[in-house]
Amino acid sequence: MKTALLLTGNEIMSGDIVDSNSAEMAQMLFEIGLSIDTKVTVGDDSHALMHYIAQLSKEHQLLIINGGLGPTQDDLTAEVLARVAGVDLVEHPTARSHLEDWCERRGVELSKANLKQAILPAGCHIIPNDRGSAVGFEINLNGCRVMTTPGVPSELRLMMRHHILPTLDGDLSICFDKLQCFGLGESRIQQMIHDQMPDWPSDIDLGFRAGMPLLEVKLRSSGNPDLHAATLARLRELLGDHVICSGSGNLAATLIELLSENGQTVTTAESCTGGRIASDLTAIAGASKVFNAGFVTYSNDMKCDLLSVNPATLAQYGAVSEQTVLEMAEGALARSGAHWGVAVSGIAGPEGGSDDKPVGTVWIAWGRRHQLKSRRLRIRMERTMFQKMVSAISLDLLRRDLLEVHEAPSYFGRYL
Amino acid sequence: MKTALLLTGNEIMSGDIVDSNSAEMAQMLFEIGLSIDTKVTVGDDSHALMHYIAQLSKEHQLLIINGGLGPTQDDLTAEVLARVAGVDLVEHPTARSHLEDWCERRGVELSKANLKQAILPAGCHIIPNDRGSAVGFEINLNGCRVMTTPGVPSELRLMMRHHILPTLDGDLSICFDKLQCFGLGESRIQQMIHDQMPDWPSDIDLGFRAGMPLLEVKLRSSGNPDLHAATLARLRELLGDHVICSGSGNLAATLIELLSENGQTVTTAESCTGGRIASDLTAIAGASKVFNAGFVTYSNDMKCDLLSVNPATLAQYGAVSEQTVLEMAEGALARSGAHWGVAVSGIAGPEGGSDDKPVGTVWIAWGRRHQLKSRRLRIRMERTMFQKMVSAISLDLLRRDLLEVHEAPSYFGRYL
Repeated sequence: MKTALLLTGNEIMSGDIVDSNSAEMAQMLFEIGLSIDTKVTVGDDSHALMHYIAQLSKEHQLLIINGGLGPTQDDLTAEVLARVAGVDLVEHPTARSHLEDWCERRGVELSKANLKQAILPAGCHIIPNDRGSAVGFEINLNGCRVMTTPGVPSELRLMMRHHILPTLDGDLSICFDKLQCFGLGESRIQQMIHDQMPDWPSDIDLGFRAGMPLLEVKLRSSGNPDLHAATLARLRELLGDHVICSGSGNLAATLIELLSENGQTVTTAESCTGGRIASDLTAIAGASKVFNAGFVTYSNDMKCDLLSVNPATLAQYGAVSEQTVLEMAEGALARSGAHWGVAVSGIAGPEGGSDDKPVGTVWIAWGRRHQLKSRRLRIRMERTMFQKMVSAISLDLLRRDLLEVHEAPSYFGRYL
Repeated sequence: MKTALLLTGNEIMSGDIVDSNSAEMAQMLFEIGLSIDTKVTVGDDSHALMHYIAQLSKEHQLLIINGGLGPTQDDLTAEVLARVAGVDLVEHPTARSHLEDWCERRGVELSKANLKQAILPAGCHIIPNDRGSAVGFEINLNGCRVMTTPGVPSELRLMMRHHILPTLDGDLSICFDKLQCFGLGESRIQQMIHDQMPDWPSDIDLGFRAGMPLLEVKLRSSGNPDLHAATLARLRELLGDHVICSGSGNLAATLIELLSENGQTVTTAESCTGGRIASDLTAIAGASKVFNAGFVTYSNDMKCDLLSVNPATLAQYGAVSEQTVLEMAEGALARSGAHWGVAVSGIAGPEGGSDDKPVGTVWIAWGRRHQLKSRRLRIRMERTMFQKMVSAISLDLLRRDLLEVHEAPSYFGRYL
């Protein structure tokens, strides 16, 4: 099914907002075997909308229009579609009762502006909006299914998932899986597959989505669930301890799950990351089960005062040293009583580097009380990316210990 | 100058990356008085590229193409443009010497794949790339200036700023200013202008870009710098203490600047934000001048142990209470010796709410030792947005105290 996307909105054209809707729609369509081949974005301009609706509907079998369904004068989608289709705009009873319910739930009156959202092209088919006031609708133009969707991301997501994807002639025998990986890049994974899975089945699509810090590896195939499952299992084995989880998820959530299963807790002692590790952990609901306290000790005095780092250690080795992070970690473990701890001290930059300890240098200590490991790494990234990556590595090192992975992670070699 | 954008790349069409380049280009063009009226995105598909290059160059005076300049077979921009223009692909000496320099700086050999980036349409004009291997180039098609640019955001940014914008027939007399605001929404600001600046000059454009937590207010005008400056000054006064800074910047950077000027320090005692406030502060280079220590006390025991909160206070009033945050802030100030402190305790959700203290409830205490203020707010946002907003409010309350703003911020009324 040849598919196009038409986005409308002055705020997208001006760059005042970044369009993330189309990426999300593309990913949802991918899961049922469809792909978008053309995407056009125009402002709230009826001439441009008419032009591209006519053109794209002639060249495609499916056209999804996003935006322009709101109550204001700028919202032109319904009006323009009626004109292109040569039908009248009429009040649609289903849309009106949806609006009435929506207003009632909010305890507000149905205004004339809102009512505009029920005035739709005659004969269109309503697409429910489970969250917002603007329903979507579908009409047929030049043999093309034209569907309209709201610009609000949370409304769009629900409408796509529950009311659009199930009606599309996607491939029902599709298999789709995602693995979240840390510590391997796309080209490295492709090389590993090339070398160790040379018989990769040609009808299983492999895709990548580079997040930071995770890389999402995607597998899609059709009509052969057994082969799909077997390939996924082999890939999972190949990627080994670099796989953080299946589906969605992240390092912090995975670590919290492992700790919860063991009934254990973790603490953090942070210098260069300044609270980022604690913040990444506590962004996950349920963190309170495994996390009681974190220490942000930015100055040397506070490393001594709060974490009992020996001033002589700081004087002799400096704040960015193996000895200091080991004492920070022991101090945090002792103060908090946590089972596991991680401490980091480094130079986030852009200032503060030296020949011995250039910007990007970081010492990490992690593990259990009196059984700590430590490692020096150099991460050449801009300050906030450096902090994000050091946090990710800290969480990953704890994850590996909890899983009793004994080899050093392969990314140690990359950050020298 | 009627302007279009054509983006190419399978990774954008698949949704594996979100296109932020086009928003950035639109904002840069806005500053010189230009706007994009059509944006088309296609995959690495020569047929689709040819089709849209031909169409958009006929309908516009400027067409910027982004992506497809790399060394791989997928990168089709030069080849397709040569075909549409009916010229040969030839090696371009300027592009070749750029590639040679680029390889030499990296200590790598110029490969055949890389050399592809010097094979460009005959007669094209080179646009320098100050960072990456792929130069851009310009040709004239159907009277339209067609410019090609690299997909890598950092390369694109430099090329736009230094080599494209200065060549465009933008408005040279344009004035452009930005104010970063916190605590006022777009509609509220529009209402304030409507009520209190009814004589707003019609030739000064007002724009908004909703960040989270800041709202960027943009002023653009042409040919009347005095009127522009006067209007900016009046707007700044109208927005008053809601203006965080001019240009770019954020709450943490502004607070750090104020503290640095005074030679003062700040500390944080965080429960529900779990380190987010400390992390926001230390994301800014130079934070170490004003920040020595932060405390993440997630459990009740740690509030007592690290911050000397009285267990009786917790037993009587609970962790989310005025009494507790006041004791947390006093404890953090005493332990760290900082001049200023902020403490937060709340229910980030989605679990943990009660009738008395529903999800989103947060108590904040802030100020100087023995002179703390406190406030209860209710912020109805999803967990990570809640944490981000509580951090922003905490930084803003300290900023207001440092500026000796005595009225309560207007957003207190919104978060009841």
